[in-house]
Parts: sequence; structure tokens; C-alpha cells
Amino acid sequence: MAGRRISPNLALDQLVAQRIARGESIVHLGFGESRLPVFPPLVRQLTEAADRNAYGPVVGDPATRDAVAGYFSRRRLPTEANQVIVAPGSKPLLMALQLVVGGGTLVALPSWVTYAPQARLAGKKVWGVPIPRSCGGVPDPAALRETVRDARGLGQDPRILVLTSPDNPTGTHAPDEVVRDLCAIAEEEDLLIVSDEIYRDILHEPGADLLSPAEVAPRRTVVITGLSKNLALGGWRIGAARFPAGGWGERIRADVAAVASEIWSTLAGPMQSVARYAFAEPPEIRERLTADVALHGTVAGAVHQIMVDAGATCRQPTGAFYVYPDFAPLRGPLAEQGVTDGATLQRHLLEELGVAVLSGHHFGDQPDALRFRAATSMLYGATPQQQRQTQDAADPLTVPHVADALAHIERALAKLPR
Amino acid sequence: MAGRRISPNLALDQLVAQRIARGESIVHLGFGESRLPVFPPLVRQLTEAADRNAYGPVVGDPATRDAVAGYFSRRRLPTEANQVIVAPGSKPLLMALQLVVGGGTLVALPSWVTYAPQARLAGKKVWGVPIPRSCGGVPDPAALRETVRDARGLGQDPRILVLTSPDNPTGTHAPDEVVRDLCAIAEEEDLLIVSDEIYRDILHEPGADLLSPAEVAPRRTVVITGLSKNLALGGWRIGAARFPAGGWGERIRADVAAVASEIWSTLAGPMQSVARYAFAEPPEIRERLTADVALHGTVAGAVHQIMVDAGATCRQPTGAFYVYPDFAPLRGPLAEQGVTDGATLQRHLLEELGVAVLSGHHFGDQPDALRFRAATSMLYGATPQQQRQTQDAADPLTVPHVADALAHIERALAKLPR
Repeated sequence: MAGRRISPNLALDQLVAQRIARGESIVHLGFGESRLPVFPPLVRQLTEAADRNAYGPVVGDPATRDAVAGYFSRRRLPTEANQVIVAPGSKPLLMALQLVVGGGTLVALPSWVTYAPQARLAGKKVWGVPIPRSCGGVPDPAALRETVRDARGLGQDPRILVLTSPDNPTGTHAPDEVVRDLCAIAEEEDLLIVSDEIYRDILHEPGADLLSPAEVAPRRTVVITGLSKNLALGGWRIGAARFPAGGWGERIRADVAAVASEIWSTLAGPMQSVARYAFAEPPEIRERLTADVALHGTVAGAVHQIMVDAGATCRQPTGAFYVYPDFAPLRGPLAEQGVTDGATLQRHLLEELGVAVLSGHHFGDQPDALRFRAATSMLYGATPQQQRQTQDAADPLTVPHVADALAHIERALAKLPR
Repeated sequence: MAGRRISPNLALDQLVAQRIARGESIVHLGFGESRLPVFPPLVRQLTEAADRNAYGPVVGDPATRDAVAGYFSRRRLPTEANQVIVAPGSKPLLMALQLVVGGGTLVALPSWVTYAPQARLAGKKVWGVPIPRSCGGVPDPAALRETVRDARGLGQDPRILVLTSPDNPTGTHAPDEVVRDLCAIAEEEDLLIVSDEIYRDILHEPGADLLSPAEVAPRRTVVITGLSKNLALGGWRIGAARFPAGGWGERIRADVAAVASEIWSTLAGPMQSVARYAFAEPPEIRERLTADVALHGTVAGAVHQIMVDAGATCRQPTGAFYVYPDFAPLRGPLAEQGVTDGATLQRHLLEELGVAVLSGHHFGDQPDALRFRAATSMLYGATPQQQRQTQDAADPLTVPHVADALAHIERALAKLPR
């Protein structure tokens, strides 16, 4: 089992951080982090709960789980506290699901860098299914049906379907009809849906909402969320899962709790207090989120425009803080400079043009595709002061360090051969 | 994979907490938690680092790893920061080792409830090897050699040897000669030693020290530690691992970092600041620890005496905060009351006598043995106020709530038939 590699997203971040520290001029779009300061009321919660040093229940204390249940219930997913498990991030919950549910795993291509490695760590077979034209984060329904049937025909057993909406890496969310199609397939083929909704609250269009698979296929959908993205708390590691009520859902929940007790014991006590506060969504949290979502949308939109102006095709981002351009239109001229696939495009952008992005092949996309993910949330600033300045600006695009970075990207991409 | 159970240690704690909340009179010795308040300087560290919301490096930031390296270096284990990984508790590190190292796993019987389930989660075969008379936490060397050779003879592949010193559940540490014997076997049989030293700093005898397998077999020993036991920070989830320098050790470290990046990302930033401070061991931390260790030794010694007076045989505790009595001398009379094995003894003590302990079979001991673990650190008090009173007392055994609990145990055990 030797020769494993660190998750490419985290590895690139470490590399770029070292190079920036050495004084290199790099615009870092390579890491899926919301670069915003901690919202002060969250710091207060952590501080006030700092004396919580007891282990407490594996699944989280009742008050915390109750707050998470309320969060889901306000999103058309009626939830009791006993359907909830909190954990140190969403990753361990996703991993536990891979460990306790039999059969293999279906993921969208491209999709977040961790789903497939987790499934393989759990000894599972993984099937990648291309995304539709309309959005990322989910397999194209027709291709999914074909993949499942082909696998069954070979005596294989696909059983878990991982969906993400809005998604990383394309920054789009699935239209209702796609969600319904996928849920219908899950019912027909008896798949467990793992719906990663960690970006759910980051939909750019005011008043926009998404249809959760848990509304359409409630008995077979586990929803995963966390505070890393909406509240920029990646470094605090707070995640939560919502399991279906009763029956199969309750059995999976109990199994995940058992695995939790062996792998991570519980979410740290002070962090549970933070979770209880944040998932209860008091007015100041909602206001902060509304303002941050507008920021994410504005900056992602600007980067999208730059990519299109540089000659890429690119889905219009509707959520999260990513764009996922395709430089296929420039394939001929790029090839003359030795840029023939995602890896060489990533390297060219970093080494020649000072722009760090993560090539699509890290997300399972075709290695020869000229696609990459740009995490636009990295543009808000390198320090909490800069980030606060960006948050507070009426137009974030005019904040000097943001405007400079956007100009850097624009100039860099203008140098791509046409 | 359905029908898993929550770790019995954590499950019992939840059950007893509910029953105490309902007003039942139970002395709770069933959970391996150091029931002491957070040391105030640790709260200050957490509070001052509360704005750390970035992910940072998977393995932990350099300053934190440097502090952990210093901690080990002061214990005759010269260590560089790049040999260290910090994590949300020691459990995920132990799990990651099971996932990245091939072959099966050898554990002592009895031993901590989580080792064997983790190995099985990783799809491994587990061999249990009885402990020697002299101590717990480690297999008897002769029995270990026999087990490995028998397994090899059957074409099986034992490859990881888990040792704990001082140990949970017996509260003893391995003499140097036993450690040397085990390391010699590991060398001969090419085993990786996982040395769980989370209780290392809790040796009751002033000036006592232990020989780490990493001193004897440095190239094949990974050491695991954490702050849950020595600093009573179980609910903060802070663990660390020290890998051998170079070669195999470096490959395993890299593999564990890769698994870390997929399962837990990193230890929460504010907790890393706590780790940096605590592992640097400033004078106030050493003083706190010295005082707490004396407390652990005094109370464990008192409970040991009660068990012996009640008719049990029991190893004299030398570390941690556990005693592990054997009521075999009372087997005949106990059988007349239907108490014939560890499970019925645990139930009898809880239901008839109001004493919660964890039967030895949960630690892999023989189911019919009349042995259990009593976690004596649970006696310090139910509230931080009581716990502080116990900590501050010249003689903790005279503190009213401690004395009452000890008297309850004494009265309860006196009711056992003889």
C-alpha cells in the first residue's frame, strides 16, 4: 500500500504557500478554501466553550444535534436530532459511509478529489460517470443508468451514488429535473445517495434554492454538510450528517456512529458549541452569509468572464466559489508550446504565468482535457485585514488587491497562444 | 456490514450518564476519561488562537510539529519536526496506520477496546496474544513468538504489533526486559511496532521512567501520543505520531499523511496552537502534570487496595488511572448468584451494587474470566468544582466526595458472596 499521495488540493496549497513565502508572484487559485476571516461571534462561541474537555456522546451532544436538525428542517428536510451525527469535518463522515455501506461507489467526473480515494481506501470499486452539459457535481443520468447496468451485467455491485450540489469543481448546481432523474435511477437500482451539500448555502442568485435528493428520495439519501465553506471555517473542522429516519437510514446511522467511535470518538467539545450556535442560524449568521454569498458570486463571475475572454468555454458559475474553464478552443496553439493536457496546462500556468490552479485530471476528468478548477475565493486577500476589506467593500472588484489579482490573471491568460 | 456497535467504553459512558441524570446512585468507574478540569493556561491558548480558521498543512504546522519533536527528544527519542504528524486525537492516527501497513495485526489481550476493531475495519486479520504476569499492555513474549510462527506456518502474515505502556486496562507498564524481548521478536519477524504511549507521562512512582520500543527498535517503531490523558483533554481531540527517520519510517509517514488528507484534512487550527504550547512543556505544564500524576497514583492505589480486600487478585497499578482486578478467587460463590463470566459480573456490579465498570471481555480478555477494568480517574468529581477540590487537596482520599465514592465501592464489593 506504499506510494500514496497527499490529496492534490492540499498538496498544491502547501507548495504554493512555500513559493509565495519565498517571494514569488503567484495568484493562488489552487485551493478550495474560503479565504475569509472568522466571523467574530463564532470566536466568542469557541472561547466561551473552551472549558468543554469531556468526551461527551460520540454522535455529538443533544443540543448540537438539535441545532443541526433545525438547520435541515428549515430546508424542507424535516429532521430529528437522532438523525444527526456531527464530526471533525465532513470528510470523516463521508469515509465512514464508505466503510459501512457494502458495494461499490459511483462518482461524477469531474468531482471533488476525495470521494474516489476514500472509496478505494475502503476497498471499494469506483465508477466515474461524466457530468451532463447543464451542470457539474452529478453524473449525467443516461450515462449513470448505462454504467450501473453494464456493471451489474458484469456481476459487479455499484451501491453508493455520490452527488454534490452546488459542486466543486464546476461551481454549478443541478437543475431540479436532473435531481429527479438521478433519484429515480437510485430507486430503480437500489442505490444509497450520498448528497454532499456543503456548498448548499452558497447559491449566487438571491433567493435561489436547490432541490435536495433527500426531498425526492428521502429513505435512501444521506445528506452531508459542514461549516468549512459557508462560514469559512475550514480550519476548525466541523461537519454534520443527516440520515434518513427509520429502517435502512437508522441502521446506517448506527453503523456510522460505531465507526465514529473507533476512528474519531467525537467532535471536539468547544467546536460542538460553535456548531450549535451556527446551525441555529441566528440573524447575524444569516446576514454574514448573505453578504459573503454575494461576494462569492461577484468574484466568481468576474473570473468566469476572464476565462471566457481568454478563449475558454466555461459553465456560468451559480454556486460555491469555483469556475471550471475548458481551453479546448486553444488546443492547437497550446500544443505548439507543449501544453497538451491538464497536467501540462496546470504547470504552464504556474511556472510561466504565475497562476496556480488545479488541473481537471485531479478531479477525475479526462487527463487530456485542457480543463482546470480556479478557486475564486482565494482572491479575497492574504491576510485577515485584506479579507475584511474585501468583505466590507461595496464592490469587491474595486478593492486594490482584488483588482490587482484579477488584472494579473487577465494579463497571464492573454499570453496564452491563440 | 450492518449491526456494528459503538465502542463499548463510550457506550457504557453514555448509558451511565443517562442513569445518573435520572437520579440513580452509581459510582462510575466505566469510562477511560481523566475527570479533571481544563488547566487554565490551555484555555488561554485555545482562546488566543481562535482566529485560526485556515486549513494549513495536513500534518500540522511546522511550529506545532517542532514542539512535538521536542517532547519526544526530551524522552531519549531524538526527533525532527518532519517525523511528526498531529491529528484530531490518537485514534485517527492509529486507524491510518492500519490502513497503510499491509498484513495483519497483533494485539495484547486484554488491550484497549479500539485496536482490534480498527484493524478489522481496515480489513485485517487480528491475533490476540495474552499478556504476561508482570504487566499489561503487551503480549507475553513467548506467546507472541509462538503466535507469529503458527500464523506464518499457516501462510498468514502478521505484520503490525500494537503495544501500550502504561496500559489501558491494567494500569501497569512493561519492564525493560519485556520491551527488549518484544523488540527482538519484532526484528526477527519483521514486524512494525505501534507503541501507544498516550499514558507515558502518567507513571505513579516519582522519577519512574519507561523504556520505549522506539529506543530499542528505532527503525520499526511508530510512537503514538496525545493530550487526552496526561492533560485531561479528551474532549479536545489532540493526538500526535512520531515516525522513524528515513527509509521505511518515512514511507509510512508519507502514506499516513496521504490518508490523513483524505479522512480528516488536519487538526483544527486552534487545537494546533494548544498542542504547540503543551508539547513544549513549559514549567507550569510540568507542575500541573506532576501534581495530577500523584493524584492518579494515590486514587488508583486506594481502589487497588479495595479490590484486594474484597478478595480479588490484582496487579499493583504503576501508571495511567486504571486497575484490573480478577475475582477468580470468588468464582464458586459468585456462580451461585448467577455471576459466571465478565458480562454477568459487570451487570451484577451495575444493577445490584451501583458500580459501573467495563468487563474484561470488552478488552478481548477471556469471556469467562471474572475480570474488569475500573477507571479510577472517574472518582475525582462530577463537576469542575469538585474536580478542582480533589486536585487541590493535600490528601485526595479525604475529600468528601472522593471518600464517599470509595466507601460506596468498598460497601458494594463487601456484598459480593465469599
